[in-house]
Amino acid sequence: IHSKLPAIGTTIFSVMSTLAAEHGAINLSQGFPDYPCDPALLDALAAAAHAGHNQYAPMAGLPALRAAIAAKLLLQHGTAVDADSEITVAAGATQALFTAIASVLQAGDEAILLDPSYDSYAPSILAQGAKPVHVALMAPDFKVDWEQVEHAVTPRTRLILINNPNNPATSVFSAADLDALAAIAERHDLLVLADEVYEHLIYDGATHQSVLTHPALRARSFAVYSFGKTFHATGWKIGYCVAPPALSAEFRKIHQFLVFAVNTPAQHALAAHLADPASWQGLSAFFAERRALLAPGLESAGFKLLPSQGTYFQLADYSAIRPDLEDVAFARWLTLEHGVASIPVSVFYQQPPAQKIVRFCFAKQTQTLQAASERLARLG
Amino acid sequence: IHSKLPAIGTTIFSVMSTLAAEHGAINLSQGFPDYPCDPALLDALAAAAHAGHNQYAPMAGLPALRAAIAAKLLLQHGTAVDADSEITVAAGATQALFTAIASVLQAGDEAILLDPSYDSYAPSILAQGAKPVHVALMAPDFKVDWEQVEHAVTPRTRLILINNPNNPATSVFSAADLDALAAIAERHDLLVLADEVYEHLIYDGATHQSVLTHPALRARSFAVYSFGKTFHATGWKIGYCVAPPALSAEFRKIHQFLVFAVNTPAQHALAAHLADPASWQGLSAFFAERRALLAPGLESAGFKLLPSQGTYFQLADYSAIRPDLEDVAFARWLTLEHGVASIPVSVFYQQPPAQKIVRFCFAKQTQTLQAASERLARLG
Ligand SMILES: CSCCC(=O)C(=O)O
Ligand SMILES: CSCCC(=O)C(=O)O
Repeated sequence: IHSKLPAIGTTIFSVMSTLAAEHGAINLSQGFPDYPCDPALLDALAAAAHAGHNQYAPMAGLPALRAAIAAKLLLQHGTAVDADSEITVAAGATQALFTAIASVLQAGDEAILLDPSYDSYAPSILAQGAKPVHVALMAPDFKVDWEQVEHAVTPRTRLILINNPNNPATSVFSAADLDALAAIAERHDLLVLADEVYEHLIYDGATHQSVLTHPALRARSFAVYSFGKTFHATGWKIGYCVAPPALSAEFRKIHQFLVFAVNTPAQHALAAHLADPASWQGLSAFFAERRALLAPGLESAGFKLLPSQGTYFQLADYSAIRPDLEDVAFARWLTLEHGVASIPVSVFYQQPPAQKIVRFCFAKQTQTLQAASERLARLG
Repeated sequence: IHSKLPAIGTTIFSVMSTLAAEHGAINLSQGFPDYPCDPALLDALAAAAHAGHNQYAPMAGLPALRAAIAAKLLLQHGTAVDADSEITVAAGATQALFTAIASVLQAGDEAILLDPSYDSYAPSILAQGAKPVHVALMAPDFKVDWEQVEHAVTPRTRLILINNPNNPATSVFSAADLDALAAIAERHDLLVLADEVYEHLIYDGATHQSVLTHPALRARSFAVYSFGKTFHATGWKIGYCVAPPALSAEFRKIHQFLVFAVNTPAQHALAAHLADPASWQGLSAFFAERRALLAPGLESAGFKLLPSQGTYFQLADYSAIRPDLEDVAFARWLTLEHGVASIPVSVFYQQPPAQKIVRFCFAKQTQTLQAASERLARLG
């Protein structure tokens, strides 16, 4: 058969998690916690199912969940979002991203990505017959040269994708970054897709600048969020998209025929859980502690740590350990020979720069991070 | 903004369920049960969540669930399906259908649909920039003229979609239908997408002829199934796609970036539940009883019932009640004036024929069907 996406392989997250499982490695590759999520959330799930909430939710999401999301955004940002016309619940942030892309890109259109870019973006654009146009950001700080971004705009450009905090770069945007982005989007009448799934995971005095707080961007952006990341339940696969009514209407045209609706008992549980702001406040402190547990182990193994301003990932330069290996080979070697799985960063670039960096996930329990540190210590 | 899908409105299922709720009508429109699903399934969900199964499942689905599906297909059809390379778990049959379509259709391609066709098919094709080509089937028996189907094939045709049992036609294919389809698909090297979500709901001595039991079709088909329909839990939004390894590989190229994976605790619960064949055997008898509860009420109201060979829907001709109304207006009138919501069938046609038919869902508890019958009796 003739493949629509001949160049697309298996996502690096499946590749590395499978390799880790096969070799009994500690899995610091794919981003998910290995500690339990709040039992209250699980009780709420069981209660919702037993209360009989097992049939289709409304297409755009359970009204109670959308209301809870709107209340959260008001508390968090002071931003008024209309639950009815501006919020759509999706089967995870990945589905929301794909749906936003599918709702505005046609064959021949272009979308601008900032590399390193999360690995679903480019294939989701290619699946529309559209063209991803990559602008590379460079370690260690991954700062955006917005002039270079504007240079990448052509008459076919429809969309700019941003990921803030950025996975895997672990960098965050400044207010000036958002202004520069807004100016370009307005000058060229572009839409913005803002992946903000790590919005609550910010370190070292950095702040999260959401497109929802920037009026010019708010008016032309899809903003995507994940309950899996925020509530330590990546397997629930529920997220949401916030966009102005006209964009949400286009989003829903695809959403209703792509998935129709999203798991009902889980939506009930999330609505109950979200109502307590403690469920999403204080996450930075929680994760900063995890980060601090992993860092010494990496450093004593000979890694040079890059600044991590956001996400639950730590970038580490391995030049001092195995300068002879490309990062894919290094990640494989570290998994097989030292029993710790990571993610090579080059796979998130269209044209990988000459850098030797891998990504470690620190959303793990203390003993996992300690065990990983012990294994890594043998490297030093 | 410039809409990618300017002609797409809101799905009829949302429209009618919303109308029913607004007017306090008994909702026999959208297809979902109003009775509880098996408490064992709900207990299994709660147990899975509390056991800590709340992080990402593997991309193609939980191995235990895929193994249970393979075991079911072997028992059901005697068909060997490889759980690893041929089964992919999806966020509902709708997501599986969209994903199969997105994985093989590009801009300019054509796909053949048999109208009345389920309302997600044509928009899912249009979302790829591809063209749905409609062949109309006519009441009361909706028999396929396969010569007419072959006539619709062009050099751009890549895919034929079938829905067996057919929603909303409630008809089923004979073995001769599958042979005729296979001959066309082979002659023109077409793929087949078989929506078989109502596989277990077959009445009056009809049989379900699955593409999985037809070697020529098995080799070139995506077959899609729904746990929501089979286990009375439409809100769980879990289904699956069975396809030969080469087709499954293309399916997964999209799936991994469209949704990545599917709700983990629900997959655990379904794996446990599916292991008992009693969970899916005996459904025809169960639903035939529901059908028999609704039929007299419809008939005494003046509806003429069409044969219902499969699905949990009953088609009814209202010519003797309000011959002046088109079916969309009739469904609205029946909801507002008589408190019973149904689905007009014309919306499933590209070119609606001159017929006066609405669809009623009988997957309802006895008192719901009785209450609907009482309301309808006032019509007679
Ligand atoms: C969808 S699996 C990948 C999880 C993740 O966000 C990451 O590891 O970056
Ligand atoms: C996805 S909502 C529609 C449910 C259904 O299959 C139907 O009513 O036909």
